[in-house]
Amino acid sequence: MNFSSRLLEQAVDEFGRLPGVGKKTALRLVLHLLKQPDAEVARLTGALTTLKEQIKYCQACFNMADHDLCEVCSSTKRDQQTICVVEDTRDVMAIENTNQYQGVYHVLGGLISPMDGVGPSDLKIEALVDRLKNNEIKEVILALSATMEGDTTIFYLYRKLKDFNIPITTIARGISFGGELEYVDEVTLGRSIATRVPYEREGIKQP
Amino acid sequence: MNFSSRLLEQAVDEFGRLPGVGKKTALRLVLHLLKQPDAEVARLTGALTTLKEQIKYCQACFNMADHDLCEVCSSTKRDQQTICVVEDTRDVMAIENTNQYQGVYHVLGGLISPMDGVGPSDLKIEALVDRLKNNEIKEVILALSATMEGDTTIFYLYRKLKDFNIPITTIARGISFGGELEYVDEVTLGRSIATRVPYEREGIKQP
Repeated sequence: MNFSSRLLEQAVDEFGRLPGVGKKTALRLVLHLLKQPDAEVARLTGALTTLKEQIKYCQACFNMADHDLCEVCSSTKRDQQTICVVEDTRDVMAIENTNQYQGVYHVLGGLISPMDGVGPSDLKIEALVDRLKNNEIKEVILALSATMEGDTTIFYLYRKLKDFNIPITTIARGISFGGELEYVDEVTLGRSIATRVPYEREGIKQP
Repeated sequence: MNFSSRLLEQAVDEFGRLPGVGKKTALRLVLHLLKQPDAEVARLTGALTTLKEQIKYCQACFNMADHDLCEVCSSTKRDQQTICVVEDTRDVMAIENTNQYQGVYHVLGGLISPMDGVGPSDLKIEALVDRLKNNEIKEVILALSATMEGDTTIFYLYRKLKDFNIPITTIARGISFGGELEYVDEVTLGRSIATRVPYEREGIKQP
């Protein structure tokens, strides 16, 4: 691109580094911001800087928080004896949105992925073991993505946690509600048949 | 969305204000930035702030520039007697990328659009008239979008400029090069037939 201004080019370059943002999108966003009042741009850059400087992670579950303990971990209404293990804060938000879960979380901060150089020691796995050691936990739910990395992490966690004799569950996998069979991919459909459940059973599958 | 952190929510809100960026995309971008080193985020916010504070507009053509005159207007290699009128800096970049144009530009800063409350006085039209008055200009090319707003602006400019007795041209409109007839929309195809040109003629259509 032939930029008429070096400053413009720099701003577009920086925006273009964001995942999924190409040069054209970056240019569109930067030109949009240029048309906005100074205060609007200052709010955006300020919010980012403040977030980056002041964000905390809950000392119990490692979810993002404004205080030492997140709202879920400090709530008396939540079941502190059930821990749902998730990859990151987005998964916490997704599960909270369902209003189906009353326990607490444990945010690993990623999944084991040798391809990306992420090993068990990069994740909050030891902290999870400590939580099980130091608290009376009744169930650990592994709510990880149904991907290669998710499965690897589940397998690793299972071996690490099984000696605690605490029930370990995973979230149910199968065809989506409302999903039509003919559009379901073969792996999902095949596994759904292999892991079929009696008709009268409902709710979370027990291990 | 149930944010575990107010700071996170604010940053996502600000990102979500950008055109074409929804809440989920904003969250993805903010979480990505959180994982980056502080310096990376500082570069992004710094580039935006600097751009906003220091960007200049060329005093001749109103394109974005780092100095009082943009590179095109201050170049001795460009034909300063041909002015190409465009909507904004993106159009300048697009035309510069073609390497087909050797003249200079005039950036209107928008198109006449009563729906959006943009009238002729909001655009750099008087400045264009002044350029024609004070310089010896040989041709004015109107390179505006083939939309309702573009056509309205072309019509307005034509009435405003025709008394100068300077040739006024518009960029050619028709089916795209490589375009297959069956996929061309009806308006474009209809106009292409109505504005057909003799086979031997090539290059820019003269008025």
